[in-house]
Amino acid sequence: MAEYDAVVVGAGLLGLSTAYHIKKTNPQEKILVVDKMGAAGQGNTAKSAAMFRSFFYSHTNLALVDTTIEFFKHVQKDLGADLKLKWVGYLWLFNDEDYRWAEPVLTVMAERGLEYRVYNAHELSEKLKLRTNVTKDEDSKLMGLADVEAGILIPKAGSIDIDSLVNFYESEFRRLGGEVRYNTKVESIVVEPREPLGTPGEPYFWQEAGASGIKTNRGVIKAKRTIVAAGAWTASLLDSVGVDAHIKPVKRQLFSVRAETNELKKLLWAKGFNSEGCVPFTILPKPRVYLKPALEENSFWFSYGDEFPRAFRLEDEPQPEENYYQYGIYQVAVKYFPQFAGSRPFTSWAGLYAMNTLDGQPVIFEEHDLLVVGGTSGSGNMKADAIGRIAASLYAGEKYAVLYGDKKFRVSDLSINQRKVEPEKLII
Amino acid sequence: MAEYDAVVVGAGLLGLSTAYHIKKTNPQEKILVVDKMGAAGQGNTAKSAAMFRSFFYSHTNLALVDTTIEFFKHVQKDLGADLKLKWVGYLWLFNDEDYRWAEPVLTVMAERGLEYRVYNAHELSEKLKLRTNVTKDEDSKLMGLADVEAGILIPKAGSIDIDSLVNFYESEFRRLGGEVRYNTKVESIVVEPREPLGTPGEPYFWQEAGASGIKTNRGVIKAKRTIVAAGAWTASLLDSVGVDAHIKPVKRQLFSVRAETNELKKLLWAKGFNSEGCVPFTILPKPRVYLKPALEENSFWFSYGDEFPRAFRLEDEPQPEENYYQYGIYQVAVKYFPQFAGSRPFTSWAGLYAMNTLDGQPVIFEEHDLLVVGGTSGSGNMKADAIGRIAASLYAGEKYAVLYGDKKFRVSDLSINQRKVEPEKLII
Repeated sequence: MAEYDAVVVGAGLLGLSTAYHIKKTNPQEKILVVDKMGAAGQGNTAKSAAMFRSFFYSHTNLALVDTTIEFFKHVQKDLGADLKLKWVGYLWLFNDEDYRWAEPVLTVMAERGLEYRVYNAHELSEKLKLRTNVTKDEDSKLMGLADVEAGILIPKAGSIDIDSLVNFYESEFRRLGGEVRYNTKVESIVVEPREPLGTPGEPYFWQEAGASGIKTNRGVIKAKRTIVAAGAWTASLLDSVGVDAHIKPVKRQLFSVRAETNELKKLLWAKGFNSEGCVPFTILPKPRVYLKPALEENSFWFSYGDEFPRAFRLEDEPQPEENYYQYGIYQVAVKYFPQFAGSRPFTSWAGLYAMNTLDGQPVIFEEHDLLVVGGTSGSGNMKADAIGRIAASLYAGEKYAVLYGDKKFRVSDLSINQRKVEPEKLII
Repeated sequence: MAEYDAVVVGAGLLGLSTAYHIKKTNPQEKILVVDKMGAAGQGNTAKSAAMFRSFFYSHTNLALVDTTIEFFKHVQKDLGADLKLKWVGYLWLFNDEDYRWAEPVLTVMAERGLEYRVYNAHELSEKLKLRTNVTKDEDSKLMGLADVEAGILIPKAGSIDIDSLVNFYESEFRRLGGEVRYNTKVESIVVEPREPLGTPGEPYFWQEAGASGIKTNRGVIKAKRTIVAAGAWTASLLDSVGVDAHIKPVKRQLFSVRAETNELKKLLWAKGFNSEGCVPFTILPKPRVYLKPALEENSFWFSYGDEFPRAFRLEDEPQPEENYYQYGIYQVAVKYFPQFAGSRPFTSWAGLYAMNTLDGQPVIFEEHDLLVVGGTSGSGNMKADAIGRIAASLYAGEKYAVLYGDKKFRVSDLSINQRKVEPEKLII
C-alpha cells in the first residue's frame, strides 16, 4: 500500500517548487519530499551563481523566466518573504561579428517589449575602465580574445538569494501539510507490477509495471507517483529503470575575488547602471567569462561554462580547479579588466549542472508513474516557479499549465516525446 | 606527432566495417583498429541473434538494411566469402488490433515493391501447430497475450554468420594495409589543443581542442582522427569528454532450446516457408517474444526485448537471467507453441545493445576530430555495411554517401544536430 500520493526525490529548488505547486493544487494529498542532505537546497542548488534575467529570444525560455521572475517580485512584495532581489542588470559585451549577428535579433526582442540599452565601446571604457581593444597584444590573439564593439544592458535582471527562495518554497509546502525527510538518500526507484501476483521476481516483462516509490538508506517509501527532481543525479537514478531524460551532469566552477584595491572597489561600485549603484553582471565577449557583483561580500564572482572536453561526470563533491582560474578565467579577465592584475580568489567552489543535451531547456515528463523534472542546464533558479507549475499540471493530467500572471503553457512542450521548444538565439 | 591518420576504437562489426570503408577510400592513410578483446567481433557483436530483414517502412531503415543485405549477397556470391546466409524469412504474427493497424502500412510497403505473404490463423495453426486462440484460458489473459489474427512472411530476411562477416571485414581491411591491435583496452580519449603552447594543464578553455588519439592499457596512441565504434561502451568513453551520443547500454538475453522431441523437430523443420525447409524466424503477437531456427545446433533461440524497467547498465559480462526464461519467455512461448511444454534452455547468453534513445536508428557524427559510429539498437548487423560507408563519407567530408548498389544517402541525416530519420512504423 502506498503511504504517499507522491514522493519527490530532491529538496533542491526544483523539487521544492514542484512539491509546493503539487501540494497547493492537491491540498488533500500526502506529498513527501526526501533529500540526502540535512536541509533544503544544500546540494547543487547551493552552488548556483543565483542570477536571473528576463531576456531571451526563445518564447519557451521567456515564458519560463518572466513568469518566474514576476513571481519572485510577488513573493517579496506581497508575501513578505525577502528574496534579496538585487536588480543589478546584465551587461552583455559583444565583439563586432557577434554584435552584427545579434542586432536584428535584439531588434525583434525590442519589438516584443523587452528592454535593453546599448553602450558603445567608448562609453564602456569610460564607465568601467574596460579595455575594449584587447587584440593589440599577441597573447590576446593567441587566446582568441576579441575587441569589444558594444554592450547591451538588460535591466530586468539581477541576483537572488537562492537560500531564501528555497526556504520560501519549503516553508509554504510544510505550511500546507507537506512532509520533508532529510538525511534520506535515495538508492533506487522501486518498480512493481500494476496487478501483482505475489510471486518472486515480479514484474515479469509481460506485466504492466510502474514506479511505486523509492528505496532509501532508511527503508522503502511507497508512493503512487514518484517524482525525480534530483538535478545532476537524475540520470543515474533513471538509468536503473531504463529511462533516458537526456540529462548529463557537468561541473561548473565559481571563483570569488575580493575588491581589495581601490580600482576594484571602483569597478564593483561603478555608478550609472542600476539602482544598486554597482557594476552589472557582466559577460565578456570572447570567451564568455562572466563576473557577478557579490555586494554583500565585497567581491566579484567569476565563472565560465566550458564545453568540450569538459566531462559529464557525477561527483559527490566536485572541486574547483586552481588552474581553471589561473590559466583560464584570470588570463581572460585581466585583458579586459586590467584592474584584476595579480588578483586571486579568496574562495571558490564547484557544483554540477543538470545539462539537458537535447536543447538546454528543461525536461518535464511522466511515464510509468515516474515524473521527471530537470535538465535546467544552469537556469533552474530563474525558471523554478514556472517549472513547478508545469510539473503540477502534468501531475494533474492537465494539457496546459497556468504560470504566474495567468500565462498558459502547454505541458507537453517540455516532454521528450512531444517536445516543442523554440531554440534560443542569444546564448551566453 | 600523430602515428596514425585514424584510430578506430572497437573491432566489432561496426568498427571493422567503418575501418574497412575508410581504408578502402583512403588507401594511403594509416588506419588502426584497437580492441580490448583478443580477436575480431568478440564483444557484443558475438552475442547477436544474427538476423536480418529487408523489410522496413522507414526509408532511412530500408536504405540502410537493403543495401547492406545486397552487399552480403555480393560478398557471398562474388567475393567468395561464405557468410552462411540462410534465407529463412521472418514470420511476423499479429493480433487483430495490430493487424488492422498494420494492414494499410503493409499495403504501402507492397506498393514500394517489398514482398510479403499473408497467412491466416487457420493456415498457421495447420502448418506450425500454432495455438492461435490462446486467450481462452485465464493465465493467458492475465499475461496479456493476444490471439493470432494473421501472420506475414517476409522472404527477404534470414540469418547470417556474424563471425564470418566480421572476419571478412577484418581480413579485407588488413589486406589493404590496415592495422589491428587486440588486447588493447582504451581507457580514455586524448584531447589536445590544436595549437599547443607546451604548458601544463592544456587545453585551457580558450584554446580550440580536439581528440588526438587514445590512452590504452598499453600506452597512448596518437591519431589525427579518433573514431569511436565501441558499441555499448560508447557513452562511457564519450562522457569523459562531454559528448552525448544519446546511446545507452541495455542487456538483451538469448536462450537456446534444443529440438529434442519429435514435435519440436517437426516445428524446427516445418516445410513450405522457405528454401531451408524450416520454421521462419517467428515473432509472437504479444508480447513480441521471438524464436529463431538455429539449424546448425538443432535448436531454437528465444529472446524478447524488454523495456521499462530494464536498466541502462554497462557490464563486462552481462548474464542471462534464469527467471527471464522460466517466468517470462517460456510462459509466453508455450501458450502459442505447446510443443515447448517442459523445455528448458541448454545454453543461454546475454549481450548489450547500444540503444539510441532518440529514435533507435544509428548515430554517425563528428565533432572535435572525434567521429562517433553507433547506437544501432540491435540492428547493427543488418545495417553494418551502409553504416561503414556513411562513416567513411563523413570522414572524407562528403555530403552524400554512396551505399552498395549506388544508393545515395545524406550523411548528416544520421548526425545529432541535423538528424533527419523517418520514424519506423513496423517495430518488433
